[in-house]
Amino acid sequence: MLSKNELKYIQSLCHKKQRQEEGLFIVEGTKLVNELLQSGFTIRKLYALPLWAEQYRGSVPLETITGTELEKISSLQAPNQVLAVAEQKQPSGEPVIEKQLTLVLDSIQDPGNFGTIIRIADWFGIKQVIASVDTVELYNPKVIQSTMGSFARVNVWYKPLAGFLPAVTVPVYGALLNGKNMHNEPPVTEGVLVIGNESKGISNELLPFVSHPITIPRLGGAESLNAAVAAGIIVSHLKKA
Amino acid sequence: MLSKNELKYIQSLCHKKQRQEEGLFIVEGTKLVNELLQSGFTIRKLYALPLWAEQYRGSVPLETITGTELEKISSLQAPNQVLAVAEQKQPSGEPVIEKQLTLVLDSIQDPGNFGTIIRIADWFGIKQVIASVDTVELYNPKVIQSTMGSFARVNVWYKPLAGFLPAVTVPVYGALLNGKNMHNEPPVTEGVLVIGNESKGISNELLPFVSHPITIPRLGGAESLNAAVAAGIIVSHLKKA
Repeated sequence: MLSKNELKYIQSLCHKKQRQEEGLFIVEGTKLVNELLQSGFTIRKLYALPLWAEQYRGSVPLETITGTELEKISSLQAPNQVLAVAEQKQPSGEPVIEKQLTLVLDSIQDPGNFGTIIRIADWFGIKQVIASVDTVELYNPKVIQSTMGSFARVNVWYKPLAGFLPAVTVPVYGALLNGKNMHNEPPVTEGVLVIGNESKGISNELLPFVSHPITIPRLGGAESLNAAVAAGIIVSHLKKA
Repeated sequence: MLSKNELKYIQSLCHKKQRQEEGLFIVEGTKLVNELLQSGFTIRKLYALPLWAEQYRGSVPLETITGTELEKISSLQAPNQVLAVAEQKQPSGEPVIEKQLTLVLDSIQDPGNFGTIIRIADWFGIKQVIASVDTVELYNPKVIQSTMGSFARVNVWYKPLAGFLPAVTVPVYGALLNGKNMHNEPPVTEGVLVIGNESKGISNELLPFVSHPITIPRLGGAESLNAAVAAGIIVSHLKKA
């Protein structure tokens, strides 16, 4: 049985301020917790329904809870067996820009988009994401859930992009509405790809550093594509295998 | 000033049952309402803040409301100037499968994914989407908002796919994890592309009707891609321009 204090403590981690003060975050559901268990993250404690708890063979402290208790601490509409409290971590070292493709996110605001972009990076073997300091917080539960576990395999740095981009010595691709037809761009072995904010695109102060503006050809009436979808389409093209 | 009854009535339209009984739906925000005004949909009434109302030159009944009232009837976190109540409509006639690419959605459950896929269809000039009867409701406010206005340019039919797909005489592409490398598939001029459910993929009973199983090559660790992202990547490839 969960004490009132412990319940309140876990609930408090749905607030960014509390997460940052404690250096913790929450991972939910069987799939994501399994990914977490196989990752380099330190798990403080697992809270699981009896069925999951019985099958668990590991050394992480585990508390068996009821469905009602899980509902109280979960931020999911349909809580799924287990919730983990884990320690946030920073990527070790600095990103290496040469000989790989790196994603750069300029002020992505929607948690679902950010998590989906990390999942895209992971699918295509991209190991580095550089986010502007005003991008949504990585450890927001909706970001973590949207990554479907990919947060454990992709390194995310937060950096002021106006300082970072000018120093980049590889091609800088940018998803723009008036760039070169993407399909005329050969696959890349090294470069960075800048994805802009959901409504404003790439900010004006960063545009001068985009050496390769590219566009997904538009054949119909929509004014734009969702940021994560655009990222997926361009990455799929640039990493063509 | 909004009467208590009118306020309650608008609020009730956030429930599917009420939307279907009344045959109405809600569109919010300046961009989407502008798209709605230019479409073939019949708008029952507009509810707008003074600033928007003053600039409006049209014949649709309009009620000027306060910010507090807009917050009460809005389902957005940040209500944006105007909300419209419009009449649902069915596409006129049946889909034409020849000489174009049509999207087929097998049980898409997330409203954001469904709306995003409609937006993708619109960007790439796809005019037809066939959704399985258990796909999320088109007029769910989150679907409508995620289309960013594209719902007005793309026709959506709901059909039992086990009856529809066997009768299709054009190539049936399916997004699968064990299909042919997408990049080896030439662009298409006619066909249907089946996108499966977010967690289960294309259902077993429909698999026999997929004549062209295709896969987005995986280079990293993620087990799958978001359904809308996968749809975007494959459509971008098949409609290569």
